Amino acid sequence: MWSEFEGGVTAPRGFVAAGVHCGVKRAKKDVAVVASMLPAHAAAMFTVNTVPAAPVLVDKQQLRSGTAVRALVINSGNANACTGERGLNDAWTMVRTAAAALGVKDAEVLVSSTGVIGQYLPMGKITEGISAAVAALSPQGGTYAADAIMTTDTFRKQLAVRVDLGGTPVTLGGMAKGSGMIAPNMATMLGFVTTDAAVHPALLHDALREAVDRSFHRITVDGDTSTNDMVALMANGSAGNPVLDGKDDPRYGVFRAALEHLLVRLAKMIVVDGEGATKFVEITVRGASTDADAVRAARAVATSSLVKTAINGEDANWGRIIAAVGNSGITFDGANTEILFGDVPILRPHYVIDFSEERAREVLSAKEVRITVDLHAGRGQATFWTCDLSREYVAINASYRS
Amino acid sequence: MWSEFEGGVTAPRGFVAAGVHCGVKRAKKDVAVVASMLPAHAAAMFTVNTVPAAPVLVDKQQLRSGTAVRALVINSGNANACTGERGLNDAWTMVRTAAAALGVKDAEVLVSSTGVIGQYLPMGKITEGISAAVAALSPQGGTYAADAIMTTDTFRKQLAVRVDLGGTPVTLGGMAKGSGMIAPNMATMLGFVTTDAAVHPALLHDALREAVDRSFHRITVDGDTSTNDMVALMANGSAGNPVLDGKDDPRYGVFRAALEHLLVRLAKMIVVDGEGATKFVEITVRGASTDADAVRAARAVATSSLVKTAINGEDANWGRIIAAVGNSGITFDGANTEILFGDVPILRPHYVIDFSEERAREVLSAKEVRITVDLHAGRGQATFWTCDLSREYVAINASYRS
Repeated sequence: MWSEFEGGVTAPRGFVAAGVHCGVKRAKKDVAVVASMLPAHAAAMFTVNTVPAAPVLVDKQQLRSGTAVRALVINSGNANACTGERGLNDAWTMVRTAAAALGVKDAEVLVSSTGVIGQYLPMGKITEGISAAVAALSPQGGTYAADAIMTTDTFRKQLAVRVDLGGTPVTLGGMAKGSGMIAPNMATMLGFVTTDAAVHPALLHDALREAVDRSFHRITVDGDTSTNDMVALMANGSAGNPVLDGKDDPRYGVFRAALEHLLVRLAKMIVVDGEGATKFVEITVRGASTDADAVRAARAVATSSLVKTAINGEDANWGRIIAAVGNSGITFDGANTEILFGDVPILRPHYVIDFSEERAREVLSAKEVRITVDLHAGRGQATFWTCDLSREYVAINASYRS
Repeated sequence: MWSEFEGGVTAPRGFVAAGVHCGVKRAKKDVAVVASMLPAHAAAMFTVNTVPAAPVLVDKQQLRSGTAVRALVINSGNANACTGERGLNDAWTMVRTAAAALGVKDAEVLVSSTGVIGQYLPMGKITEGISAAVAALSPQGGTYAADAIMTTDTFRKQLAVRVDLGGTPVTLGGMAKGSGMIAPNMATMLGFVTTDAAVHPALLHDALREAVDRSFHRITVDGDTSTNDMVALMANGSAGNPVLDGKDDPRYGVFRAALEHLLVRLAKMIVVDGEGATKFVEITVRGASTDADAVRAARAVATSSLVKTAINGEDANWGRIIAAVGNSGITFDGANTEILFGDVPILRPHYVIDFSEERAREVLSAKEVRITVDLHAGRGQATFWTCDLSREYVAINASYRS
C-alpha cells in the first residue's frame, strides 16, 4: 500500500522545479519549470476539445517522436489558445527557450499554458520568466511550481505518495490546477506528475490512461472541457527499481493503484475548489449492467444542473436523480432502483418512498455529500465527484472581463 | 403563407376544450380536456428519458393500436412518474374516466401529466376533475385548457395559425407548457396541437417529427430531459380539404411549414419563460459541413453553462463559444471560424479579434441576443433557442420542496 505525504513534483528523487513571477499576471507567480536530472519517459493525455490550444499541439508532436523528456514549462494567466500560427510559434519559442537554458534538446521539453483565451503571449516577459525559473530550479521548488500554475484556484494543489515496488521504495509527486477561472478563460484542468520509478514508456502510458479514466475523467464542475486540459507524467528511474515493463508483473498493479490514488486526490482537490462550490459531492452508481453504464449514469447525475442546484439547496430531491439516470441513455428499470443519501435510503425498490426528512436534511447539510444509486441490474460500478451549483458560480462566471 | 392569430387548441373547427380546478394544485386550474367532435388522426412524440412516466407508457400503447383519437386528458401538479404499477393503473383510470364521460372508446383517449415526481395521483379529485372538465367543454375553452397545463409557467402559452391548403383554409392551434418547475419536478415540456386539416396519419407523424426536430428539439433551458415530455397532434379533417396524403403533394410543404412555425413560436415562449431567464438567446451555427454538425455545435453552445453565464453577465466572451463548439465533437477549423453578436463581428477568421466593446455590450444588454457562429466549412446550418443562466435559476432550483 502507499502512504501519502506533503510534497509535490519534487518529492521523487531526481526532480527539480521552480515557480516565478514574470508579469503575465499582475503579482502572482506565473511561470513554472519542472526538470528531471535524468532523461525521463513521459506520457500525457490531452483535452478532447477539437480546438486545442497551441501548447497541446506542440506537446502531441513532441511525444510522437518518442524521445525522452527532460522538462515541463508552464505559464498561467494566458492560455495561448485561439491564437493561430503566431500562438504556435510562441509555444515553440517557450520550448526552445527552456531547452536552451537547461542545455537539453528541444525535443525533450513539454509546454503547457492556462489562462485567458484569444490573446497573444507577452513573449518578452515569458522568455525572461523561463530563464529566471531555470536559474531558480531546486529540489524544494515543487511548491513554487504548484503556486505558479494556479489561476483563480483558492488553494495550492499538490501531494506526494510513496509505495513499495517489489522491495524498492518509489515516490510519485503531483500538482494540479483546477476550475478556477480568469475570464474569459475556460475551466482548465492541468495535472503534472513525476515519479522516480523506472517504467517502460508503453506501460507508463497505459497506467496514466487507466488512472486518468478513474480520476480526472470522473470529476465535473460545469460539464465544459477546456481547450488546454492536459495531464502529463514523467518517470526518471532514479529510485533504482528493476524496470517495470509488463502488465503481468504484480508490481504494475501496485504502481497503477498508487498513481490512481494520487490523481484521485488531486482531482478531488479540484472539485473542492470548484467555482462557487459550497459542497463536495460524491456520486456512486452501483448495480449497473456494466461499468460503462455506471460511468454514463454517474456522469449524467454529476452534470445535471437540476441535481446540483437541489444539493445546493439541501433538498432530498431523488426525482431529479432518477430522471438524470434516465437521461443518460442506459437501460435500467426505475422500479428496481434504490437511492441513498449518505447511509439514509431515500428511494427503495418499487418506488417506495419512506424516509425521514430530518435525517435526509442532516446528510445534505454537511459539506460532503455522498449519493448512491443502486440499479440492481448487475455488477457495474462507478464513482464521480462534483460540487453543487450555487448562485456564486453564476456570479463568478457572469462577471465582466476586467 | 400562414397568418398568426390569438387562440389555441379550440381555434381549429371541431375542437372543444376545458380547464378546471380539481385540487391537485392549491387554487389554480389543474385538469384539462381537449376533445374533437369527429374522430381525429393523431401523432405524438415522447421523451427519450428511459424512465418515462406512466401516461407516456399508456399513450405509446394507445397509439400503437392505430385507432383514431377523440380526446386528450391532462393534469398538472403531479407527474405520475416513478409511481410503478399503481401509477400505470391511475393513468389508465384517467383514460377510462374521460372516455366514459365523453362516450367514446377507451382506445380513443390520450393522457398526459406534469408536476411532482414520485407521488401518487389523488384519484378521487382527478376523476371528479375529469368529469367536471368534460361537462365544461366548449369551443372557447382552449384558453382554460392552456391555463390548466401550466405548472410554474409565468404566462399562458398558446397560438393559432391559419394557412391556405390548396384553396381550403385550415387552422392549427397549439398550447404548451414550459420549464416552470414545481419542486421536485423536472422541467417538463408539453405541447398539444390541433388542426382541422385532413391529413393521412403516416404523413401527420412525419410532419410532426420534422417540425418537432426543428422547434422543441432546438430549445434548451438546462439540458435536462423530463420523464414526461410529449408533443401530440390531432387532425380531425373538419376543414374539408381533400386529404393530404403524399409528401410530393405541394400542400405538404405548406402544412409542414405552418406546423413548424406554430411549434417554433410555442417553443420560443417556453424559453422566454425559462426559470430565472433574463435574456432570450438565439444561437445560429452556419457554414458547418452538414446540418447535423450545425445542430451538434449549436446545441453545445446553447447548453454550455459558461456561455450562458457570460451572456447573463453581458460579457462578449467569444472564447467560451468557440470552446463549446470544440466540445461538440464536430470537425472544424478554429482558424476559419467567425463569431457575431447581433450584427457585430467579434471574432474574424484567423483569430482576428478587433471589435468595439461598446457595440458588443450594446448587443448583449438587450433582452434578445442573437449569436452567429460561421464555421466556413460547408452549407450546414441550425438555430437553437435558449436563455441565460442567472442567479435566479439557482435560487429557484435550490429552494427546498415546500
